[in-house]
This record gives sequence, structure tokens and C-alpha cells, in this order.
Amino acid sequence: MSLRLSQNTIILNTSPSIASYASIVGKKEGEGPLGKHFDFVNDDNTFGESTWEKSESRLQKDTVSKAISKANLVPADIDFIFAGDLLNQCVGTTFGLRELEIPFIGLYGACSTMAESIAMAGIFIDNDVAINAAAVTSSHFCSAEKQFRFPLEYGGQRTPTSQWTATASGAVVINKKNAPPFIRAVTIGKIMDLGVVDVNNMGAAMAPAAHYTIGKHLADTGKSPDDFDLILTGDLGLVGSDLLIDLLNRDGTDISENHNDCGLMLYDLDEQDVHAGGSGCGCSASVLCGYILDQIRDGILSDVLFVATGALMSPTTVEQGESIPGIAHAIHISGKSE
Amino acid sequence: MSLRLSQNTIILNTSPSIASYASIVGKKEGEGPLGKHFDFVNDDNTFGESTWEKSESRLQKDTVSKAISKANLVPADIDFIFAGDLLNQCVGTTFGLRELEIPFIGLYGACSTMAESIAMAGIFIDNDVAINAAAVTSSHFCSAEKQFRFPLEYGGQRTPTSQWTATASGAVVINKKNAPPFIRAVTIGKIMDLGVVDVNNMGAAMAPAAHYTIGKHLADTGKSPDDFDLILTGDLGLVGSDLLIDLLNRDGTDISENHNDCGLMLYDLDEQDVHAGGSGCGCSASVLCGYILDQIRDGILSDVLFVATGALMSPTTVEQGESIPGIAHAIHISGKSE
Repeated sequence: MSLRLSQNTIILNTSPSIASYASIVGKKEGEGPLGKHFDFVNDDNTFGESTWEKSESRLQKDTVSKAISKANLVPADIDFIFAGDLLNQCVGTTFGLRELEIPFIGLYGACSTMAESIAMAGIFIDNDVAINAAAVTSSHFCSAEKQFRFPLEYGGQRTPTSQWTATASGAVVINKKNAPPFIRAVTIGKIMDLGVVDVNNMGAAMAPAAHYTIGKHLADTGKSPDDFDLILTGDLGLVGSDLLIDLLNRDGTDISENHNDCGLMLYDLDEQDVHAGGSGCGCSASVLCGYILDQIRDGILSDVLFVATGALMSPTTVEQGESIPGIAHAIHISGKSE
Repeated sequence: MSLRLSQNTIILNTSPSIASYASIVGKKEGEGPLGKHFDFVNDDNTFGESTWEKSESRLQKDTVSKAISKANLVPADIDFIFAGDLLNQCVGTTFGLRELEIPFIGLYGACSTMAESIAMAGIFIDNDVAINAAAVTSSHFCSAEKQFRFPLEYGGQRTPTSQWTATASGAVVINKKNAPPFIRAVTIGKIMDLGVVDVNNMGAAMAPAAHYTIGKHLADTGKSPDDFDLILTGDLGLVGSDLLIDLLNRDGTDISENHNDCGLMLYDLDEQDVHAGGSGCGCSASVLCGYILDQIRDGILSDVLFVATGALMSPTTVEQGESIPGIAHAIHISGKSE
């Protein structure tokens, strides 16, 4: 049963377990520093499908199917699946998951979706609303470029502050298995918009949201950055990470020693030409489900604050001159149940 | 505290209250049979904004603000807001709600969003995860036509089976006020796709989802259609409503005497040239929050099964020849707390 600490922060008193997790990525992500940690690397990024949208759907379906099988379950054992993606009307998700026939709760949180979906699934398990719940998200470089920027064939140039949308998916199954990793608490963010209008600098647009949510989590729980081995933001990249550290420093909170960012971990920034780092729902999802959760399970990391960040604009709002709202949700994941 | 009856159906044992509700609509909806029941009718559909997307954001913000004030609350009193809409990346919602600074859980359920958001908010309140939660959705004829069909200036013709996207929004505030209307149970649907490919016949695409969810709700709870004064589907319109009644009849379940559809109630189908009826997230949201909840509060209706239905395609998937997946979620709303 959950304990409401504040409007944002909920303690999951029964410490639901991430019973299993899986990650699948594309070729470039497989060539990055975390390449050997993913369940599967697809070498041509099509995942055997005829359009990029179908490739993303297949990626998401295969990833959550893998997570379910790793928990020794079948789709019919899952009470609810919480999922979303970046594509218009979330079709990566709806077409990916339709064959699984699991009661479906569609989410839209842009690149914050992995944290949002884990938060919802964790709250459902903590309160016995579900026995097994799944959470999944994905992104695909080619479907995202086509929709948000330019068709690949155009060969558009990228600015130094731009990030690279990961072809990647991560999925978890949550239940009361009573084994690590455990979900201890969640902090739901609010929409923050400090007026950044540069769509090629999403990290700057999302940093204020991460600042708010991390600050709120620490204040609500009475914890300090040192209580976490790792404060892991979603996809702030180089620019956004620096901004976040600076914003928190102004509050007297120093996370510089224990902060990392999924967008900085997925690729080799010197060698892989991703400019300011990775992004996309699948970036933080695959780093979490491919690398971090293993480290928690194996006792290498004890307490991680996973803070996935999302930019909540669309190409239409950008064309209309609107600024970019951001959001961040935080999940305290631990190797200990209390 | 909630009782899980099945993978789909949750009984909300504390019977959370819909403490307040509000609805705002456009000119055409104001001229329809329910016109006098809405909180506000905007006569030019712009809601004072310069683009249709901004109009929809303003509509959604004004509606949820009205609901919050009708509960004698301010936005800072709301723990979580569950919301979504039909626009790409749900920007009707994200730009509409950013000024309210309420912890935000973004949903994507297409036209099922009102039921999905009430389900989530109800479960949060039932388990004391929140003290006050809000749920809101919207649609706007002009932003939807521009995005899903043709710009208005094109003057496209509509087929007889097509439905009219409502310019409308509905919002609720849910808490433990212990006054009717009460939320007694929710049934979360799964994605159903029987292969309908005609994007001008959404009712047919969504009817199998309503069939599944209504059948599951009745089976899980042991209720019959006669236990409800009204089984109110989202926006199946004329074609989908007939199909739904037929599909349930084949199971031996007759809802013909107590079924109605929000898409058939919002407009005068003989006079208002909406063809097969209304649709859009705001259609079922405004009919529920403008008319039905009043009737429950006033004791005219006792038990209503509200079943909002969504079509989960995008223009891109339609162009790629994909069929249209549908989903439906059901909420049992009652004048009695037990």
C-alpha cells in the first residue's frame, strides 16, 4: 500500500520488484559502449519490417515479449501494460502491442515514458490493483527523423546541440516477487517551460523539469544526493546535464559526483557522431533495462534515482513559435527492499 | 482500497466521488440537443486564440479550471492530473495544462481518454495515492480535420459513415467527498482489431472493443445490462452502435433497451449534418460531464456504465494500409456508494 508524501511523491511501501527486464537496440547502439549488455542488437534497424513505423512497433513488441518470457510468464499473465512512444498517436505502441492482448493503458510522456510507465505499474502493484504489470517504451531513429525533422534521404545537417534519437526499447515486468531491483518511491513531475524555443537543444528545454523533479524528490523524502549511488537522468545530453548540475547547485544541491545521463552513456560521443548525446524514449529505457538494472541486481549499485525527461512539443507547435515544455518523473530503484 | 476482480476489472471499494465536473463546447455543439447543459458555449470556436491547436489547448485548460473551481479548489490542491487528446504528441493537453502546474500524467487513449483518465484518477483516489485528482480531455473539429483529414479550406466531402469530431472538453475532479456521483468500478480494455480499414467508418472499427469491454465488465462483476439504467458508449455513432448491439446479441446479451451513444446524443443527426454522429475525445467527455453526471447527481439515473471508445490509428498507418485498432474502457458510475 502506498504512502502519499506530497502531491508529487509516493512511497511504495511493499517495494514492488522489477521481476524481469529486457532491452533491444539497433546497430549504432549495439556498437556503443553498452553494446554487449542488451538482449539483442538488430544489424539493419528494420527489424524485418517494411516501414520505419512498423520497425518500431516490432522492436517494442519483441522487447516486452522478451521481458515477459524472462519472468517465466506469458502475455496472458500480465494484468496491465503501460506504454507509449513518440510517434503521432503513439502508433509504435498501439500497433506493436495489439497482438499481445494485454489490457492496455496508453501513456504519452515523450522521453519520460519509461519513468512514467514504471511509476504507474509500480503504484498498481503496490496497491494490489494488479498481480503482474508491464511497462515498455521505444524510439527509432528513422521513424523519429521522418516525423520530427527530415526524411533520411534529405541528408539534413545537425547542430552541435542536437541529440541522436536512439533506436532502442526497454521493458520491465513488475510484481511482488520480492527480489531486487525494488521500486521504492516515485515522484511525478509537472510541466516546466522556461521559454526555450530551439528544437535542436532539447536538453536545455528539459533540464528545468529534471531540476524540479530531483529537487522535489530530495525535499519530499529528506534524502541528499549522497543517498544515491547514481542519479541517472533520461536524455539531457551534454548541454542539458551541465544546465541541470548548475541549476541544482544554485539550490545548494551538488549532484556532480553521482550524476550520469543515459544520453551520454548509450553512445561514444567522441567516435559515434551523435553530437550532444542520445535521446528518444528508448534511450533511457534501454540504458536502464540493458545496463543499470543488472548492476542493481548484482549489488554493484545499491540506490539509483532514475529520472527520465521528456520534451512535450510537436512539430506544429514549433512552427507556431511556441516554446518547449518539459517534464521529468523520478523512480527510486534499490537493491534493498527497505 | 481496490479489489482486483480480474485482469481487467477493479472494484473501487471506497467509491470515490466525482466531486465536480465541467464541460465547455463550441458553437455547433451548443446548438445541439444538449446545448443548455454545458457550462459554456464558445460562439466562434477560436476560444480567443490564433491557431486551432491553441484554441484546443485553451478549451481544455478552461474546462479543467472550471471543474477545479466548481469543487471549491484551486489548481495547487490537485495532486495529479490525468489527461490527453488526439493531437500529435498530445499538444492540446501539454500546452493547455502547463500553466496550471499540477503534477501531470499524460495519457494517450484517443477517444477513450475520458474513461481512461477517470479510471486512473479513481484508482489513485481509492488507494489514497492522491487526495484530489483531476481528469480531462478535449477535441476540436478544426485541429482534428487539419491533422487527420483535410484543411478546412479544402472543403472535402464526407462519407455517410463518417463522424463529426466534436469541439468540446469535459473534466472531473475526483476525491473522497462522499457525495454522488460515485465511481464504483473500472474495466480496462485491450486493443481489438478485426481488420476494419475504412478510416471513414471509425464506429465499425471501435465496436469490437466496446463489445469486449462491456462483455468483460458484465462477466467479471456478475451484472446484467438491466443492472444499469444506461450503458453509454463513447462515439460509436449510428453504424458502430448497431454493430455493438448485434455483437452483444450473439453472446445472448441484449443492451438495446438501455444503450445510448454519446455520438448520437451530442448533435441532432437529422438537422446538424454530422452524418453518423459525433466523435472525438471531447464528445463523450462533454456528454458525460455536461449532461449525464447531472442526471446521476440528481437521482434521475442511478447506475451508468460509461464506455468510452478510441480508434488507435494515425494518418501514417492508414496510408500504409494498416487496419484500425480500437480500445474501450468502462467506468461504473452510480448515485449510490454501495
